[in-house]
Amino acid sequence: MMPPFQIKFMPESRIIEAESGTSLLHAAAQAEIFIKSGCGSKGSCGACKVVVLSGEPLVIGTGSLTPEQLSEGVRLACQTMIQGDMTVEVPLESRLKEHQVLMGDVQKGILQESDHDLLEKFGHQPLATKLRISLSAPTLTENTSDWARLSMEIRRVLKTGEKPVDIPLSVLKNLPEALRKANWDVSVTLTDIDNGITVTHVEAGNDNPPYGLAIDIGTTTVVVYLVNLSTGEVVDQQGSYNKQAKFGDDVITRIVYAVENAEQLQEIRIAVVDTINELIDKILVRQSLTCNDFSAAVAAGNTTMTQLFLGVDPRYIRLEPYIPTMTNVPSIPAKDVGLHILPEALVHCFPSVASYVGGDIISGTMVTDLANGEDIILFIDIGTNGEIVLGNTDWLVSCACSAGPSFEGGGITFGMRAMPGAIERVVIDPETLDVALKVISKTLPVGICGSGLVDCLSKLLEAGIIDRVGNFQMGHSANSARLRATSDDKEFVLAWADQAGGGKDVVITENDVKNTIRAKGAIYAGIRTLLNMVSVEMDMISRIIIAGGFGNYLNVQDSVQIGLLPDIEEERFEFIGNASIKGARLALLSQNAWREAKELGQKMTYVELSVGPTFMDEYVSALFLPHTDFSLFPSCT
Amino acid sequence: MMPPFQIKFMPESRIIEAESGTSLLHAAAQAEIFIKSGCGSKGSCGACKVVVLSGEPLVIGTGSLTPEQLSEGVRLACQTMIQGDMTVEVPLESRLKEHQVLMGDVQKGILQESDHDLLEKFGHQPLATKLRISLSAPTLTENTSDWARLSMEIRRVLKTGEKPVDIPLSVLKNLPEALRKANWDVSVTLTDIDNGITVTHVEAGNDNPPYGLAIDIGTTTVVVYLVNLSTGEVVDQQGSYNKQAKFGDDVITRIVYAVENAEQLQEIRIAVVDTINELIDKILVRQSLTCNDFSAAVAAGNTTMTQLFLGVDPRYIRLEPYIPTMTNVPSIPAKDVGLHILPEALVHCFPSVASYVGGDIISGTMVTDLANGEDIILFIDIGTNGEIVLGNTDWLVSCACSAGPSFEGGGITFGMRAMPGAIERVVIDPETLDVALKVISKTLPVGICGSGLVDCLSKLLEAGIIDRVGNFQMGHSANSARLRATSDDKEFVLAWADQAGGGKDVVITENDVKNTIRAKGAIYAGIRTLLNMVSVEMDMISRIIIAGGFGNYLNVQDSVQIGLLPDIEEERFEFIGNASIKGARLALLSQNAWREAKELGQKMTYVELSVGPTFMDEYVSALFLPHTDFSLFPSCT
Repeated sequence: MMPPFQIKFMPESRIIEAESGTSLLHAAAQAEIFIKSGCGSKGSCGACKVVVLSGEPLVIGTGSLTPEQLSEGVRLACQTMIQGDMTVEVPLESRLKEHQVLMGDVQKGILQESDHDLLEKFGHQPLATKLRISLSAPTLTENTSDWARLSMEIRRVLKTGEKPVDIPLSVLKNLPEALRKANWDVSVTLTDIDNGITVTHVEAGNDNPPYGLAIDIGTTTVVVYLVNLSTGEVVDQQGSYNKQAKFGDDVITRIVYAVENAEQLQEIRIAVVDTINELIDKILVRQSLTCNDFSAAVAAGNTTMTQLFLGVDPRYIRLEPYIPTMTNVPSIPAKDVGLHILPEALVHCFPSVASYVGGDIISGTMVTDLANGEDIILFIDIGTNGEIVLGNTDWLVSCACSAGPSFEGGGITFGMRAMPGAIERVVIDPETLDVALKVISKTLPVGICGSGLVDCLSKLLEAGIIDRVGNFQMGHSANSARLRATSDDKEFVLAWADQAGGGKDVVITENDVKNTIRAKGAIYAGIRTLLNMVSVEMDMISRIIIAGGFGNYLNVQDSVQIGLLPDIEEERFEFIGNASIKGARLALLSQNAWREAKELGQKMTYVELSVGPTFMDEYVSALFLPHTDFSLFPSCT
Repeated sequence: MMPPFQIKFMPESRIIEAESGTSLLHAAAQAEIFIKSGCGSKGSCGACKVVVLSGEPLVIGTGSLTPEQLSEGVRLACQTMIQGDMTVEVPLESRLKEHQVLMGDVQKGILQESDHDLLEKFGHQPLATKLRISLSAPTLTENTSDWARLSMEIRRVLKTGEKPVDIPLSVLKNLPEALRKANWDVSVTLTDIDNGITVTHVEAGNDNPPYGLAIDIGTTTVVVYLVNLSTGEVVDQQGSYNKQAKFGDDVITRIVYAVENAEQLQEIRIAVVDTINELIDKILVRQSLTCNDFSAAVAAGNTTMTQLFLGVDPRYIRLEPYIPTMTNVPSIPAKDVGLHILPEALVHCFPSVASYVGGDIISGTMVTDLANGEDIILFIDIGTNGEIVLGNTDWLVSCACSAGPSFEGGGITFGMRAMPGAIERVVIDPETLDVALKVISKTLPVGICGSGLVDCLSKLLEAGIIDRVGNFQMGHSANSARLRATSDDKEFVLAWADQAGGGKDVVITENDVKNTIRAKGAIYAGIRTLLNMVSVEMDMISRIIIAGGFGNYLNVQDSVQIGLLPDIEEERFEFIGNASIKGARLALLSQNAWREAKELGQKMTYVELSVGPTFMDEYVSALFLPHTDFSLFPSCT
């Protein structure tokens, strides 16, 4: 066997060891440098460009790289295999940007008031509990079995009535020693769900609380909360990119990779399990806990993420008529999933509604409390897909519209996530076309995030730089150098190279604008289709709740100006951040909440937008700023 | 690595290959030749004598072998390690005799009427069922998930009401292909128990019935029934020695072996799982079935057998105050146990009452229907331990008395099981001491079985050869050559060498007689102690039901004459054969029966005989033929 080779990644100078035959894409992930991958390592998208500074790799494909690029050492990371020591530069544009993971409000140290209100409303009765039990030692005359002795006391203390108390074989195997070593004074960890109570751990008596994990499995990022199940407090949190990114940026590419064969399905499953485990391990160390302290986990993810997490082949999600294997997910012992928590602790995954309305949306819907009042509420989670839920206590409809990755920074020349260096506000002087920018963290701009893009479109339109279909007006009276044509496209310079973090002009192109219009058009058309479906008018909507990383920074006025969001009073809009993880926390802490989540999955009607002409008609009408039907946007002039 | 060596076992001339370092005891088991092992391979009991005819093994101990034996090539199989090719003779007296496994009445092709009566009484509602389901294929407008589509139809057909329908992850993973390959016409295997319904298998639609396995895990023998769960019919049966025999003949020796370390616990677990799997495999082949056709298993075994079967450390069963790990056993998927049946099929083990009143007794008690009437019934299972249950619908008490292995052929010079060549009846002329024998299968006698032993004691007493404490009367008036003294003991010749199958005199010694008196005394004392406990007189007992291999051939009059069984009318005795496997079949076929079994486990009071003086007093009084208190045996003269 060959020794592993040393691969040095620049500019970090980070060195890792990798085996011969490993692709640079994988090796970089090993070094915690996440390279974009749009095509699932097929060499076709060209997103994973790197520069080989030294070493002689095996190049198995060069895709559409030009001879010039090749001569400069540019290679595709997915097509470049290690066969010796190397030094490789990973340019900024090829990287998934540094962690920008939407943690929710605990970043600020507190949960929102409303989160506590909800817990109060559902009732604090967590999915796992701990019980301190003192038993009398057995004698010849009191000689019931270890398990009978323990379970009788549990039943007595909990007054379980008819609810059976079960014990898995693995816990049973350790029971005699656990009881005797603890001198019959033990702490028992219990899983308490509808079907019954299960003893998942028996250890020496202690008064530590039980902990649970809330997990948000996003396609791009994964967030974990450590929740004290006794107090409800979020004690710690961690987030990172989903390691599945190396198999492709979006769910479709990952499905294509996963269904190739059983090994690849397993590989992509392990990638997300590893991602979560690394976050857990960090929390373990920081909080001085052990795996056995984690007695339950609730995971929320879209349907594909959930199936991949559990190793369930996702092929039919992608093929018409788009059928997921399951919408209800069995609760599974952690040992069968591979999570670093108590082996018998149950891992609960939120149910889904359909292939493209997943557990993250159920979780978010629960947090909005949408299904418990008379008022009609619209809930939108904007990412690559825009998932939309509309309803109240009597009815619930949902749909998913493929918005494309624009709002998450994808398919936009200088697109990036909302993180330091991202332009989030744009001011354009209509006379001179001079630009003033607001950049996150007040650094030099390096790109533009989703909310910046919305603002930018609004301002480009206002300044007359684009027309209502997004065409650049090259004959603009200002005659500014910022508005220019290249060999490929027309573009507007938002920041000149000498004032930009990346050392080059930050621009928005006509193509970027058209992509953004398609994205906003898809979401607005989705909203309209749902409304039509249930014969609800815009003004009957009491509240519009917006979730997702994008939503957190969005300017409502701009969004209305470009026709992304309905033109209703600004006060009716609400931003909820990472609703998915909030719902996971809530479910951990409340059996009623978890029950509600499962009922939501049953109750919600899924509308397949590709059926019938409505959505397509709405979509075409929405490819206009703000809309071809101006009457829908009275506040837009 | 050394090549395996060839070991030839005589007189069969059976050759197997074995690695260097393997003991002859293990190698013989590999050759399906089961050698007695009383001490768990410690070299102390001397039961495993073999004769090395050729080859040079590594001898690590010789126990109490005499120089003369050693010079004749006699070795202890457990202390003799293979290090080259060998030829070894295994004498008859060192062998667990050829399979004599109590199959129950299906040997005769039918179940007893009463077995069917019981099923009718409990109701035929098996622990697993099959359902043929035809689904409509999904479309864009009917796009529920595969699992929702299937489970809705199951719920509709079964009218399950509130009972949840679950699916394990492994079945879920195969679901999409199973549905599509079958073109949406599938057969679904279901496990239906109290907690809910679980889908354990989905396959192309067919009309084959579901099958279940009833398993009797005896310390010595293992029996498996193949049961058609639709009709209740026992379709096939197989039995063999428990491969754990190589670790010792009785539960105590096996416990000692198992608790040494985790590897040995695993080794002894695998031995019984292998035993069962080989029986299953034979049935599979004979019936042209596959593992997936077996959708449930119910196993009945004593407490130690049950813990070893599941790999639960049995150490506290042996140590005062004799505490088993569990009396209620969780139902476990076959894949976790390692049985060759449907991986997700549940394996249900009968609950136990205490360390020495196990699941086999619960199973048998259920079959006697003891707990469902006003009449007081006494149930006795006689083996190495005598387990006794007394009660009616209002109360149930049980105990275990260590009878020793006499009735199973152990500790008796010519003891053997009830199989061809075993003496089962003895007639002795009181004048001449001439003997007439009845031998099973009418062959030449080679030994004496339990029922023969009971008869023999009765006749020895009647003929004045022994007195009421079992002392041989060497001055007997007949002055027969059959009654003789050896250097070790006094003995009576039942068959002369020239009329015996083994080529030597078949005798019963004074020591044999004393052992038998101790065994019968223990059982009778157990019965008396239980009766005292609940203030019940002998004549209040309506029926005495006797189970076990021994019981099947027992002569009631003889048993009463020697004081083994109470002196009540012969009509009140009943023999039930292998009650344990009958109960396992019943539980497979009836959820009510299985529920009753679990309730019996809760309801039955266990009496520890070593507490208080009662049992010991009774035991001492019973070391007399028939008893020191003649008033208890009015029919004995």
